[in-house]
Amino acid sequence: MEATAMAAQRVLKVVGFNGSLSATSKTRGLVKAAVEICKKSIPGMEMEFVDISPLPFLNPDLVVNGTVPPEVEAFRKKMAEADCYFFSSPEYNYSVSGPLKNAIDWGSFPTNVWGDKAAAIVSTGYDFGGGRSQYHLRQMGVRVNIHFINTPEFFLNVNEPPPKFDEKGNLIDEETKKRLKEILLALQAFALRLDGNCK
Amino acid sequence: MEATAMAAQRVLKVVGFNGSLSATSKTRGLVKAAVEICKKSIPGMEMEFVDISPLPFLNPDLVVNGTVPPEVEAFRKKMAEADCYFFSSPEYNYSVSGPLKNAIDWGSFPTNVWGDKAAAIVSTGYDFGGGRSQYHLRQMGVRVNIHFINTPEFFLNVNEPPPKFDEKGNLIDEETKKRLKEILLALQAFALRLDGNCK
Amino acid sequence: MEATAMAAQRVLKVVGFNGSLSATSKTRGLVKAAVEICKKSIPGMEMEFVDISPLPFLNPDLVVNGTVPPEVEAFRKKMAEADCYFFSSPEYNYSVSGPLKNAIDWGSFPTNVWGDKAAAIVSTGYDFGGGRSQYHLRQMGVRVNIHFINTPEFFLNVNEPPPKFDEKGNLIDEETKKRLKEILLALQAFALRLDGNCK
Amino acid sequence: MEATAMAAQRVLKVVGFNGSLSATSKTRGLVKAAVEICKKSIPGMEMEFVDISPLPFLNPDLVVNGTVPPEVEAFRKKMAEADCYFFSSPEYNYSVSGPLKNAIDWGSFPTNVWGDKAAAIVSTGYDFGGGRSQYHLRQMGVRVNIHFINTPEFFLNVNEPPPKFDEKGNLIDEETKKRLKEILLALQAFALRLDGNCK
Repeated sequence: MEATAMAAQRVLKVVGFNGSLSATSKTRGLVKAAVEICKKSIPGMEMEFVDISPLPFLNPDLVVNGTVPPEVEAFRKKMAEADCYFFSSPEYNYSVSGPLKNAIDWGSFPTNVWGDKAAAIVSTGYDFGGGRSQYHLRQMGVRVNIHFINTPEFFLNVNEPPPKFDEKGNLIDEETKKRLKEILLALQAFALRLDGNCK
Repeated sequence: MEATAMAAQRVLKVVGFNGSLSATSKTRGLVKAAVEICKKSIPGMEMEFVDISPLPFLNPDLVVNGTVPPEVEAFRKKMAEADCYFFSSPEYNYSVSGPLKNAIDWGSFPTNVWGDKAAAIVSTGYDFGGGRSQYHLRQMGVRVNIHFINTPEFFLNVNEPPPKFDEKGNLIDEETKKRLKEILLALQAFALRLDGNCK
Repeated sequence: MEATAMAAQRVLKVVGFNGSLSATSKTRGLVKAAVEICKKSIPGMEMEFVDISPLPFLNPDLVVNGTVPPEVEAFRKKMAEADCYFFSSPEYNYSVSGPLKNAIDWGSFPTNVWGDKAAAIVSTGYDFGGGRSQYHLRQMGVRVNIHFINTPEFFLNVNEPPPKFDEKGNLIDEETKKRLKEILLALQAFALRLDGNCK
Repeated sequence: MEATAMAAQRVLKVVGFNGSLSATSKTRGLVKAAVEICKKSIPGMEMEFVDISPLPFLNPDLVVNGTVPPEVEAFRKKMAEADCYFFSSPEYNYSVSGPLKNAIDWGSFPTNVWGDKAAAIVSTGYDFGGGRSQYHLRQMGVRVNIHFINTPEFFLNVNEPPPKFDEKGNLIDEETKKRLKEILLALQAFALRLDGNCK
């Protein structure tokens, strides 16, 4: 009750990341769907899709006198201003993708701008729906001080019928959209809870 | 400020677990020291050391019509009534000990009584001070819905001088006691934060 | 070719473990089926089902002057004499069961008798078929120096139709038996390969 | 004895990777030292340092009709021709670096060229000397079918005295060089063992 009232008053800024660089990736489709769901049916929550593809590979030599490349600076500013995070992760070789790991690392280097916020993960893959990548991401979260929600977890096996995406990677499955909304609501509730829920 | 005032008003019940069954284990020494630290210098936090050694091995056949053995029932009652948890874990073969895993599992079987509470981990070991066990424990926490604090982490390399324990496993090192207090305060703050901090 | 000839000449002794203590567990059913498959259709490989339920909880205080309890001694002797290992693991709270972890630890304490042998894992569970327990078990294997085969992996989602087991936990599904045989053959090949294949 | 004779006859080609892009990284220093150690004092083992910095971020859209960018093709050719692998990994946020993950993924996409070979890992970091990155890398290895040696493990805490590297990142510590040689010899022995040792 009170939390719902809170949600109506306060607008949480969520940053959504997609770990795949493919223009038609299913994880991109999930973030785009999440942005829409927030807009249409979750009062108090706005998600911005932040593209990680402009980031260079993290090389400590690129940081000069504490100054990072402009693309990195822009990215880090988004991180710092967000209230919470939404990761959409493909599973590459039983872990997260290189680009996603690289983005996470730029968020903590040379200083950590992730700190002390709530986050949720969704993933796609075969067999386990990308789940192995989630547990690796959670371990990274310990270091950058992200608080991941525990439940619900969201794994999407892209091989299981019915088809979940069209050929452009847009999410077309209503059941999956419903599950997406559930995890977004759980993220909202946890973020508000971490934030005192009563400020 | 407000959180400190809260701490004075509300007393958090912490249950402390020791993953080693040895009468002189260092992890036991850490829990005992944590109990003392709470008593002497952390208003609003009381820790009870709950012994896991009376628990039988988890065997689903021991649960008849939803009824568990009396030792398990008593243990589960402690879990359910606690406000948060403190795990003191030795590292056995790069993970938690069998007895600790068993205790965790009884807390979630046949129903989960751990749910949705804050927790902290301290560990002992060689090289990494038991750290590998912590990341396994954190993964278990996703399933039983425990929210572990991210920082500070507490690893204790028992091989590094000066000696941290006497021959009975009592913690004698003041620096380690100071680190213990820091993680307990962080647990208190996170538990209150998760609890609304303002109820 | 040569490997097949080898297999005919040399008989590998495999020890099979079941991580669940239930009399009707599905993981027990997998070990029993694996024993049968070796007997009937894999020349050069004999599996013995070694029960972990007689083992006490590992308590370092039980080891006196290097002497372990008789049940532990018998267990460790089996480990030491085996050529390779077969683990059948249920997933409890996103890791292995307490009894299985306890058995693994007795195999390495007070000295490691697991060392330097091949092993395979099969698991059961929901969603991911017990897979999370496998990656934890693999990490333990680094410490006790077990060489797990990488492929095939064997996960069994017990919720997916058709039914795989009868009410006593006996494996009745032919497709699953076929997959079991494949992983056993891979274990045999890897064990022989580690063993020089040509001695 | 026989293995030693083999080592003298057969020359193993090792590819060494460095997970950091910094020109003065300590992990680079470890690979360079390993190359030297092989050259000077390990008959039968030649290490080539393969730079991962020319690789683009993995984007499935870059693969057209199975053709990968030329830098990727060159990299994959090195992988395919190697007999075994040597990873030198910094720990970034409790896992491997983005560039290293990216390189691993290009080795398995669109087809896996890593398969079925021996590998070793060394890492640098604080507290645990980069160890957390090693267990993540090992999990990736299950998927790409790499067989990591279990022992010795090599963690290097760069904060512990004495200094291990000069300001250019060259390894200057003799004790560390000795440990490097030990892990290289273990890799050689395991690679030969996997290879039949008698071909």
